[in-house]
Amino acid sequence: MRAVDIIAKKRDGQELTPAEIDFFVQGYTTDDIPDYQAAAWCMAIILQGMSHAETTALTLSMADSGARLDLSDVTPVVADKHSTGGVGDKVTLALGPVVAAAGQPVGKMSGRGLGFSGGTLDKLESIPGWSPNLSIEAFKRQLARVGLVVAGQTADLAPADKKLYALRDVTATVPSLPLIASSVMSKKIAAGANVILLDVKVGVGAFMTTMAEARELAELMVAIGARANRTVAARVTDMNQPLGMAVGNALEVREAIDTLRGAGPTDFSELIREEAGLLLYLSSRADSPESGRLIAERVIDDGSALTKFQEFVAAQGGDPRVVDDPDRILPRAKVVLPLPSPRPGWISAANARTFGEVTVELGGGRARKEDDIDPAVGVVLAAKIGDRVERGQPLCEIHTQDDFSAQQAAARLLAAYEWSDEPVQSPPLIRASIAAPAG
Amino acid sequence: MRAVDIIAKKRDGQELTPAEIDFFVQGYTTDDIPDYQAAAWCMAIILQGMSHAETTALTLSMADSGARLDLSDVTPVVADKHSTGGVGDKVTLALGPVVAAAGQPVGKMSGRGLGFSGGTLDKLESIPGWSPNLSIEAFKRQLARVGLVVAGQTADLAPADKKLYALRDVTATVPSLPLIASSVMSKKIAAGANVILLDVKVGVGAFMTTMAEARELAELMVAIGARANRTVAARVTDMNQPLGMAVGNALEVREAIDTLRGAGPTDFSELIREEAGLLLYLSSRADSPESGRLIAERVIDDGSALTKFQEFVAAQGGDPRVVDDPDRILPRAKVVLPLPSPRPGWISAANARTFGEVTVELGGGRARKEDDIDPAVGVVLAAKIGDRVERGQPLCEIHTQDDFSAQQAAARLLAAYEWSDEPVQSPPLIRASIAAPAG
Repeated sequence: MRAVDIIAKKRDGQELTPAEIDFFVQGYTTDDIPDYQAAAWCMAIILQGMSHAETTALTLSMADSGARLDLSDVTPVVADKHSTGGVGDKVTLALGPVVAAAGQPVGKMSGRGLGFSGGTLDKLESIPGWSPNLSIEAFKRQLARVGLVVAGQTADLAPADKKLYALRDVTATVPSLPLIASSVMSKKIAAGANVILLDVKVGVGAFMTTMAEARELAELMVAIGARANRTVAARVTDMNQPLGMAVGNALEVREAIDTLRGAGPTDFSELIREEAGLLLYLSSRADSPESGRLIAERVIDDGSALTKFQEFVAAQGGDPRVVDDPDRILPRAKVVLPLPSPRPGWISAANARTFGEVTVELGGGRARKEDDIDPAVGVVLAAKIGDRVERGQPLCEIHTQDDFSAQQAAARLLAAYEWSDEPVQSPPLIRASIAAPAG
Repeated sequence: MRAVDIIAKKRDGQELTPAEIDFFVQGYTTDDIPDYQAAAWCMAIILQGMSHAETTALTLSMADSGARLDLSDVTPVVADKHSTGGVGDKVTLALGPVVAAAGQPVGKMSGRGLGFSGGTLDKLESIPGWSPNLSIEAFKRQLARVGLVVAGQTADLAPADKKLYALRDVTATVPSLPLIASSVMSKKIAAGANVILLDVKVGVGAFMTTMAEARELAELMVAIGARANRTVAARVTDMNQPLGMAVGNALEVREAIDTLRGAGPTDFSELIREEAGLLLYLSSRADSPESGRLIAERVIDDGSALTKFQEFVAAQGGDPRVVDDPDRILPRAKVVLPLPSPRPGWISAANARTFGEVTVELGGGRARKEDDIDPAVGVVLAAKIGDRVERGQPLCEIHTQDDFSAQQAAARLLAAYEWSDEPVQSPPLIRASIAAPAG
């Protein structure tokens, strides 16, 4: 078998066999196949596509390119959840504790933010002392004892994906559904997950901007999961405006704590209940998504989800007082500037991407991988799509370290809003549900 | 400007500007753009195509990636000819002396054979002492004095093409008309040619196997030439059976000498007269291709073309006695085995590719770049398509160094022939003529 023949076959639009895909992936992992051949291959995949069978083979081959995390001695069912990334997406922070409090262990590897999209590890690191750096043994111990772990990606899981992802970034071969889907799914499978809930974001603040491509990605990942004998379901959820109210690391931790206390924003609280119910059902902890949802509501109402969050924070070295006294424990910005509405009306747009980009500019995210971030800065919305505002009433609050950057952010954020003279419907958060095939 | 954005633009099927193409080509030449980005770019070009304007920009950019050969102090018009490669293609060996004898200097850089297709330098090197290694100064002196030079490609002409060609070979990005056309034309332009005759071979013994793709390549190269202000014309010529009778280095030199003496095979002699007439017309040495052809016939008839060949051989260190006594001067194979026809009939196929491959197997060509070649071996046809043969009458003669390889070759060559019980037309050699736009 020769790499160049495999590239030529894909270039000519033919379907590759699992053996050919595995030859390429393992050869690339061991440096026997050079970057330039992998780059040509990725471009051929982008332009000629891959069948579900090919994408599944690519996923499993990347999952097998390094060690696989085996958690079966800790729990028979490992539940995981993945979001394709958006603005204000603090779902893991609240969903994990709810599901864990309901008895289903959640052991998760998360990433950092890049560009306008935030990252779960960055958010949790705004809690003083909290660390994502756990050995595999510590990960398992905490999963057994607390039922909830969020760790950084360890290097030896799916190294082929890591290498290919870095290459795709510099060869314009990122936007390919088979390559995106296999990247996500290979990491989940290598990390030992057998129940996976996928949250595919769609809208101006997501990587997928159209419903058609978001649905296609969701369906593809569910199909790969079924072929790889995992229980997978997906939701396509709105990312035209930020999720919840808070955008920015410490601000989002605080909002997650509020939500676990039952006092979160409507849309975010609703999504947590919905996704927790589904995950409990998929993990066979509930007879239906609806009864799973009732369980989720109970662990929020009785405070056990919040307690689980506190245990989790403490287990990873974080200050547990963050739960009871977030104002004192979390870093806070020096300047909080309200942005008044220049006109009355019903909000018809609050461009999620602008909120993400402004947060990066304020120092709350990374333009480049090596950038440091300021956990305190960000934006808290006061009005979302469908809300009525009067002239002068605040649209949002800008959290920054100085007046100048606050003013700059205000100008940009103003352009993110649109108003209507007629009432506007609040957009539905869940846009599509893709269920795993029965089996 | 960033390489990754240029790759993305081509990936998305958009037209690149000359500045973008030049940025990429010059960046790749200086190693500022790595192989993996160039590989992704080439694959995007293969699958999304390039406009004539883009292909011209790529050609000129590659031609400008190193030194350009300036021959204007030697001759105002530099005529060149390029064949896309075939079996038994000894056109340069006969065409050069005819055109030079008619007063039009021909200064040419040629290549070596690879795979089933032979190379002009390999053929000429079967003349003892002849060398393609000339300094630029020696090249110019000989062009002025003799009017005919055939030299090896010097490294500093079109280095971007050289680098890209090597990369394409290992990334399955060879079969792209814009990439093939720009590779050919960039070398011709860098070598100083302003009149270029392109011989695009079509058939089983050529890289282009269908008339449609051969015509498209020919039209593309003529269009690039016109945009780059060169006088270019193209002929699409048949390569289903070998050109002439001889296949193999020394055997082809001998056939070229016979042809310059007026005693060559019909098809090859006809092609030389036709192409020489056209090249003399394009170089403004004749009022029409037809009058150019009359001049070509005259210099063959009066012996001046053969004398020019002898002068040329001597100027590059070769033994000039090869012209008068080729049997003694050229290397000869130990074994000459006639292949008798197993049946009577009219020859309906003589697969050119098989003749080329058999010659490589006999040691007369290269399977890999670093292989040595045996100049003596090859095949001389005795019957071509349209000829009537009786049972036992020779189809060809196999020239080898031992009986075993002769027998092996015989078995393979037998499979290259087909017979018909009805008379078969000899196929036309010139399949299409593509003229440069008037100007």
